[in-house]
Amino acid sequence: KKIYKIAVIRGDGIGPEIVDEAIKVLDSVCAKEDFELQYEDYLMGGVAYDFKGTPLPDETIEGCLKSDAVLFGAIGGEKWDSLPREFRPETGLLKLRKALGLFANLRPTAIFDELLDASTLKPEVLKGVDLLVVRELIGGIYFGEPRGNDGFKGYNTMVYTKPEIERIAHMAFESAMKRRKIVCSVDKANVLEVSQLWRDTVIEVSKQYPEVTLSHMYVDNAAMQLVRNPRQFDVILTGNIFGDILSDEASMISGSIGLLPSASIGGKVGLFEPIHGSAPDIAGQGIANPLATILSASMMLRFALGETKAADRIELAIKKVLHDGYRTKDLANYGAKEVCSTTQIGSIIADYT
Amino acid sequence: KKIYKIAVIRGDGIGPEIVDEAIKVLDSVCAKEDFELQYEDYLMGGVAYDFKGTPLPDETIEGCLKSDAVLFGAIGGEKWDSLPREFRPETGLLKLRKALGLFANLRPTAIFDELLDASTLKPEVLKGVDLLVVRELIGGIYFGEPRGNDGFKGYNTMVYTKPEIERIAHMAFESAMKRRKIVCSVDKANVLEVSQLWRDTVIEVSKQYPEVTLSHMYVDNAAMQLVRNPRQFDVILTGNIFGDILSDEASMISGSIGLLPSASIGGKVGLFEPIHGSAPDIAGQGIANPLATILSASMMLRFALGETKAADRIELAIKKVLHDGYRTKDLANYGAKEVCSTTQIGSIIADYT
Ligand SMILES: CC(C)[C@H](C(=O)O)[C@@H](O)C(=O)O
Ligand SMILES: CC(C)[C@H](C(=O)O)[C@@H](O)C(=O)O
Repeated sequence: KKIYKIAVIRGDGIGPEIVDEAIKVLDSVCAKEDFELQYEDYLMGGVAYDFKGTPLPDETIEGCLKSDAVLFGAIGGEKWDSLPREFRPETGLLKLRKALGLFANLRPTAIFDELLDASTLKPEVLKGVDLLVVRELIGGIYFGEPRGNDGFKGYNTMVYTKPEIERIAHMAFESAMKRRKIVCSVDKANVLEVSQLWRDTVIEVSKQYPEVTLSHMYVDNAAMQLVRNPRQFDVILTGNIFGDILSDEASMISGSIGLLPSASIGGKVGLFEPIHGSAPDIAGQGIANPLATILSASMMLRFALGETKAADRIELAIKKVLHDGYRTKDLANYGAKEVCSTTQIGSIIADYT
Repeated sequence: KKIYKIAVIRGDGIGPEIVDEAIKVLDSVCAKEDFELQYEDYLMGGVAYDFKGTPLPDETIEGCLKSDAVLFGAIGGEKWDSLPREFRPETGLLKLRKALGLFANLRPTAIFDELLDASTLKPEVLKGVDLLVVRELIGGIYFGEPRGNDGFKGYNTMVYTKPEIERIAHMAFESAMKRRKIVCSVDKANVLEVSQLWRDTVIEVSKQYPEVTLSHMYVDNAAMQLVRNPRQFDVILTGNIFGDILSDEASMISGSIGLLPSASIGGKVGLFEPIHGSAPDIAGQGIANPLATILSASMMLRFALGETKAADRIELAIKKVLHDGYRTKDLANYGAKEVCSTTQIGSIIADYT
């Protein structure tokens, strides 16, 4: 029987509650398929700062590195927002991504028919949307040097090298090969030199994927097209900050932001987290929606552990739960037959797997 | 009788057609109010490259500088997309903005009730949206040094100095004072040092506008909030590239992208242009929608020439034309009683002023 080690980072706000439900569901699929998960908890984010004086303790990095995957809840909150940058929860997350070599962030935006109405977009625009943002995660302006702020002048550097672009481009093309075989690379090549290199390199890499249709779009146009006709996209390939902006926009368009998972991969150990934040305002009330975290756990099974059948079980269970009308409070207005607490819906999903 | 000099840049694609209609309307309001406009044509963009070998001839800059305002159509097209950067139409536009000192780009996004249905957003989300993006236009990563691309490494610098941030912040707060007195400053201060300086400086400037409510939003969240609830915004203040992305997103949300004007101001001479592009695919067919350009002409009267009454006349005429069901082809499905050509709708607006 296979045994996998999972590093668990519950984090701040609703993080602990939603991760608990993901673990509940994971345990139920383990029992049905033939493997075992061993969890080890690590501190990160505001809670790590409070207990250890740093948002990312060394033992957390080490613990993640010796695990098979990292399951992540959410971090941050107003409480830590005015700390100097090096102590902020976000800084811990950026450092962890870098330390684990997670150069690719995959964010699927699928539409659940049951929740079509939850979007501010018209259902006829939304129906059938199924896109994947492939965002470069440990380069670009997030990490570029030189950077600084002396109180008179502030500056950051958006920089990419060819190998950095190549590896994320390969990731996008390989993802597209498993999907509808369309890649749209987003840049600002009409203004930025770094984008020109991006575009040239993506074109070069694309030659190795003759079956994939490649197009290019300026980032301002992409921000429009996501609103105008999100169905046109299959895989969106882009850099760190453009990906940050566009993937959030895409997720909001879907109306299902409480249901969207993400995978950060490419290094030794993958990290799996919901795309929503730590929502401190509703923490501890038992009303948080754990579905995005449970779907992230499913991505973990699929991408990090290769346990495809177990991953399928979870996804199917979630579809059934939505179909049967179980909803957390945030989605109470969208087809709810029964409004559930965080733990209730977690248990129902576990049962359904 | 007052006489104003207007530099006219028709540009590429549909540029010439739509500018002609704006001039038709301007001439009709001049006749009704007591001033005169003298137009002088200048080349810019692809057409300038074709005739003069450069997208921005020196005489165009000089001509603009000795005018009272610049009326601009649109530039660019696939034809020139593969030229080296220095010859591309966009490069001409960036240089012109810089040469004229146009540090502030104002993009109002209002919703025309008659066109509510033209948006992909639900009407109930859209109704009453009235926001203004104030985008810094001659700084940030568009112009920052060092920049380059040696084929292995590409890089650009996002840089702002305090005085650059101060002047655009003042512009935003002053705009807000004439509106609902709410400013949302958008940055990525949780990651970027340049954004931290941006935020600190905006807070400092805000002290001079105690009546204005200031909030801050990360750019990824802003991209979501524009979709989730665009009505929450009054003035959005942001830097060059974030403004590029968010203002295009905002305009698409409105569903009225063919109707949105912009003003680039702050230097000696203001430049007024529609936010849409040059649409080479429909050029010369007489079906382009000139309303955004006509509204840009109205902004020119208001902001550059102080001819408020004439500006009001144009805006009122456009409202009436929409109300009476005249539409260009692009809006034929949204309440059209009569589908008009470019010149027809221009003439009707001129009559209505
Ligand atoms: C918290 C923040 C640093 C982070 C980012 O910008 O990458 C977040 O927005 C995300 O997208 O994961
Ligand atoms: C054409 C391009 C250089 C320009 C920009 O990015 O500023 C355009 O997108 C705009 O917003 O006016």
